[in-house]
Amino acid sequence: MKSFISLDWGTTSFRAYEVGADGAIKNQTTAADGITAVKDGAFEQTFENHIGAWDKSLPIVASGMITSRQGWVECAYAECPADAAELAQKITHLNTATGRIVHFITGLHYKSPSIQHDVLRGEETQVFGALATGATHFVTPGTHSKWIETKDKRIESFATYMTGESFALYSKHSILGRLMQGEAHDEAAFTRGVKQSFADPAGILHSLFSTRSLGLFNALPATALYSYLSGLLIGQEIAHATRAHDHDAPYMVLGSAGIAASYISAMKLAGLNVKLGNPLCGIEGQRIIAHQAGII
Amino acid sequence: MKSFISLDWGTTSFRAYEVGADGAIKNQTTAADGITAVKDGAFEQTFENHIGAWDKSLPIVASGMITSRQGWVECAYAECPADAAELAQKITHLNTATGRIVHFITGLHYKSPSIQHDVLRGEETQVFGALATGATHFVTPGTHSKWIETKDKRIESFATYMTGESFALYSKHSILGRLMQGEAHDEAAFTRGVKQSFADPAGILHSLFSTRSLGLFNALPATALYSYLSGLLIGQEIAHATRAHDHDAPYMVLGSAGIAASYISAMKLAGLNVKLGNPLCGIEGQRIIAHQAGII
Repeated sequence: MKSFISLDWGTTSFRAYEVGADGAIKNQTTAADGITAVKDGAFEQTFENHIGAWDKSLPIVASGMITSRQGWVECAYAECPADAAELAQKITHLNTATGRIVHFITGLHYKSPSIQHDVLRGEETQVFGALATGATHFVTPGTHSKWIETKDKRIESFATYMTGESFALYSKHSILGRLMQGEAHDEAAFTRGVKQSFADPAGILHSLFSTRSLGLFNALPATALYSYLSGLLIGQEIAHATRAHDHDAPYMVLGSAGIAASYISAMKLAGLNVKLGNPLCGIEGQRIIAHQAGII
Repeated sequence: MKSFISLDWGTTSFRAYEVGADGAIKNQTTAADGITAVKDGAFEQTFENHIGAWDKSLPIVASGMITSRQGWVECAYAECPADAAELAQKITHLNTATGRIVHFITGLHYKSPSIQHDVLRGEETQVFGALATGATHFVTPGTHSKWIETKDKRIESFATYMTGESFALYSKHSILGRLMQGEAHDEAAFTRGVKQSFADPAGILHSLFSTRSLGLFNALPATALYSYLSGLLIGQEIAHATRAHDHDAPYMVLGSAGIAASYISAMKLAGLNVKLGNPLCGIEGQRIIAHQAGII
């Protein structure tokens, strides 16, 4: 394989990595210029502002929300089931005014039996970068977390959960935030929330209120309420996402350290066989897909 | 019974009614001065600003969030089960500087088997004002809706659902609001949301995302998404609130016209025996409790 520039340009952040022929990261830059912060479609200019000094001959491989309608180039979804080869075939190529070539890996659409249409962008590439670990079931925690199931190196199905966004809404904008003191992780309170949701997964609109009532009656200290709420929501997600699935399957969590640790803790409480994946597996996924496309 | 002034002073609104000896409303005033808008505990002054011209010899009967820690006088909760006589015994009396007497009816605490502590303030008085209808199971839709079960004229148990607040959060502050056009009620979309939640009540964090994905794929028009989201949340609440209850029990919805109609529509889809109650039953409840206390 050859060197390339890996671009992970999401809704709220910009991340670029210069990746050597051996897969090692030689250079990287991160900025808060998520795609929603880019005005008037000035993606190329924003991009050059951050990595203008990097080698212009290197191919750029991009995935994630940058391929959405709000992104640089909107790429039509590929359909589940899909393997890395299919994503390689569907790459969209763009020549920039500065003489670079950007290769966009599109996301996936799934004809979901539960909600008819489900979509993701970026997580497919992470999964293809993590398949070599032997895991088959993946969770990508985040604003909208995704539960992705693979079989024979193909992504068969997935489901979106609005857990991260819900947590932000309830902790910052609802009455539940008023009694909270601080955001320090409290494992006991987190576990209590997880178990509450495991015991009654359909009761979340009711259980959420306990974040207030337990605080009002000093059954939980104010400093524990943030973690308790997190446990309620993550526990509810896990209970539902694993309801009809093989509990012995090799699960892997792909996410940054703090939130991934919470998911792993809760998934172990559910008796799942789960490991922490490499948070940079998206780069490896881009490398595999771009290689199959003959780009690197 | 004698005449009195009924005070319904909640978090976001102030309502007062002059009620005749026969129970008829002779005078009323409504303002946006909810208790959170009252600065430095100036409840009496705010109160006189609105009803200063009303007869000072009339007893005032108050219930709702005005008896909470954030209200005029904090009243300790009564414990479930409780009847009107017990609330009458627990009334807190206050003499104002202007020579009025305010009688505060406190709220209820319930040692909930599901969330340990549950509370309400104001809805207990509505229920006691509606018991003569023969209904035994009551729903009070709102920011936090309450499902209240009675037996032999006592409130036995209740459960809070954060449905209204969740709807406001998701429709106004989440990604789900971005595709929405307008807030007009669309009964078909509402029903679709209700049925989605009835079919998979534990899947709400997942189903919520369909408000976006169905819009993205034009499976629902943008004008229908607001009602669809409402159906998802209300359906989820109803599915859980009635999970272990008698579906043939006489249910009654106590709420203002629009939201009550949505609840009744969804509860009928669930096969429940439900009727619309009088939205002013809180006044009748105050009248009954104050009469038992010998105040009127």
